Amino acid sequence: MRNSTFGLTAAALAPISAKKDGVFPQKESKPDLLSVGIAGYTFHHLDIDQSIVIMQQVGVSALSIKDFHLPLNSSQSTIDEVKRRFNSAGISIYAAGVIYMRNETEADQAFSYAKKLGVNLIIGSPAYDLLPYAEKKVREENIRIAIHNHGPEDKLYPGPKDIYDRINKMDSRMGICLDIGHALRAGADPARSVSDFSSRIFDLHIKDLADNSSSDKAVPLGRGIIDIPSLVKALQQIQFKGRCSIEFEQEVKDPLPGIAESTGFFRGVMSALS
Amino acid sequence: MRNSTFGLTAAALAPISAKKDGVFPQKESKPDLLSVGIAGYTFHHLDIDQSIVIMQQVGVSALSIKDFHLPLNSSQSTIDEVKRRFNSAGISIYAAGVIYMRNETEADQAFSYAKKLGVNLIIGSPAYDLLPYAEKKVREENIRIAIHNHGPEDKLYPGPKDIYDRINKMDSRMGICLDIGHALRAGADPARSVSDFSSRIFDLHIKDLADNSSSDKAVPLGRGIIDIPSLVKALQQIQFKGRCSIEFEQEVKDPLPGIAESTGFFRGVMSALS
Repeated sequence: MRNSTFGLTAAALAPISAKKDGVFPQKESKPDLLSVGIAGYTFHHLDIDQSIVIMQQVGVSALSIKDFHLPLNSSQSTIDEVKRRFNSAGISIYAAGVIYMRNETEADQAFSYAKKLGVNLIIGSPAYDLLPYAEKKVREENIRIAIHNHGPEDKLYPGPKDIYDRINKMDSRMGICLDIGHALRAGADPARSVSDFSSRIFDLHIKDLADNSSSDKAVPLGRGIIDIPSLVKALQQIQFKGRCSIEFEQEVKDPLPGIAESTGFFRGVMSALS
Repeated sequence: MRNSTFGLTAAALAPISAKKDGVFPQKESKPDLLSVGIAGYTFHHLDIDQSIVIMQQVGVSALSIKDFHLPLNSSQSTIDEVKRRFNSAGISIYAAGVIYMRNETEADQAFSYAKKLGVNLIIGSPAYDLLPYAEKKVREENIRIAIHNHGPEDKLYPGPKDIYDRINKMDSRMGICLDIGHALRAGADPARSVSDFSSRIFDLHIKDLADNSSSDKAVPLGRGIIDIPSLVKALQQIQFKGRCSIEFEQEVKDPLPGIAESTGFFRGVMSALS
């Protein structure tokens, strides 16, 4: 190996069923620990096989799928095939999103997609005037929606309070996907947001930022300004049962090291606080 | 990138001075946090440039150098050149080892090497009958030696007590490099060992094991059976001022993900307990 290239290539291209280099056993999670997932946007430059290799290497088995891996207008058979590929690699798809919904047609498509996919959680961003229709769909389909906050540039939902204030009188299956990086940039403390909006926190996008000037400042968890231990304590306090999905969105040739470091950091915090 | 290979290759081969992909800023360490390093054996299949890339990617700047990167009989100019390469990449060499010493010639060479390298710590494994000579060298050169425990297969120093019992009446600069994986396999609890032998713990090799049956069972930190939070608490309790060096020795094509996950986990534990 000293004289050869090194990197992920061989592992990434290996068939899923082959014994995989760099895949280590993951111990059974203790019941009191939070559940870790990966937010699909993390893999925005990777195909499904590459994403699977990375998830296996970091030992995370739950994915919130993003539409570049499975378009929203996919047929049932395409959806089944993509599900099969993830499932046969030991990965379950627990949610889909972020899905933008600007009109009823898009909302119908989102709920139809989630239903075909067999998930009971959509990470979404519905237009304000579509919220009553989204609530109707939630009731009809018994599929929850977690609205995603996208920071100061988001005209609809910069921070979690912008979501909470619009949904807290609506069906209890309408909630929040707390993106802690965008929340911080919108002036909201992530841990405090978990406590304040506890009944409506359904999902999280976990990340860190070198500073709060822009979303381009993503760094591996623990290197930046977000207080992850306080977040974990707040989640433990509310006995959070959803997923804490790592979202590592930085533009790098190989996102695996940053995903691995972030996942390790989050697990280390949980381990120390359990 | 979707249609190209992905991996470390380009980054690994890039000149050190180039802007490096996947290198993120590391925040200033808080004074009360333990210091993280890397044990050189981690890089046993990588050359110096590849090792530097990995250390920069995981944001660790202290290395205990192993002789495959710098042979023990190197000239002063070779040593200076290797030091320059690491230093110009922001990495300091804080120790050298593990160095085996079976006779006075080997001990002389080890201390001469450390002196030329400008480090005041040798991670070593001296034969029993060489301990008085090693102590003499420690006094002459004012260079400390941390004896490394290597598990049940090690005829000299399986666990930390085997070291402590032989050095605790010797010069206070004779100590232990606590290898927590090998210690566990030798029946010693790592955290308890830190407390029991606190005055003589100079350095650590931090790792995890899927089980304690063999040293081949290395896994990224947090995936195995070693209680890292208890170890960190014990180190904080004794106000440990040395280095906690990650040693990820598993045979994989690309060790970076395991190193990154391990480093992240250790930092996460420290962060939660600080």
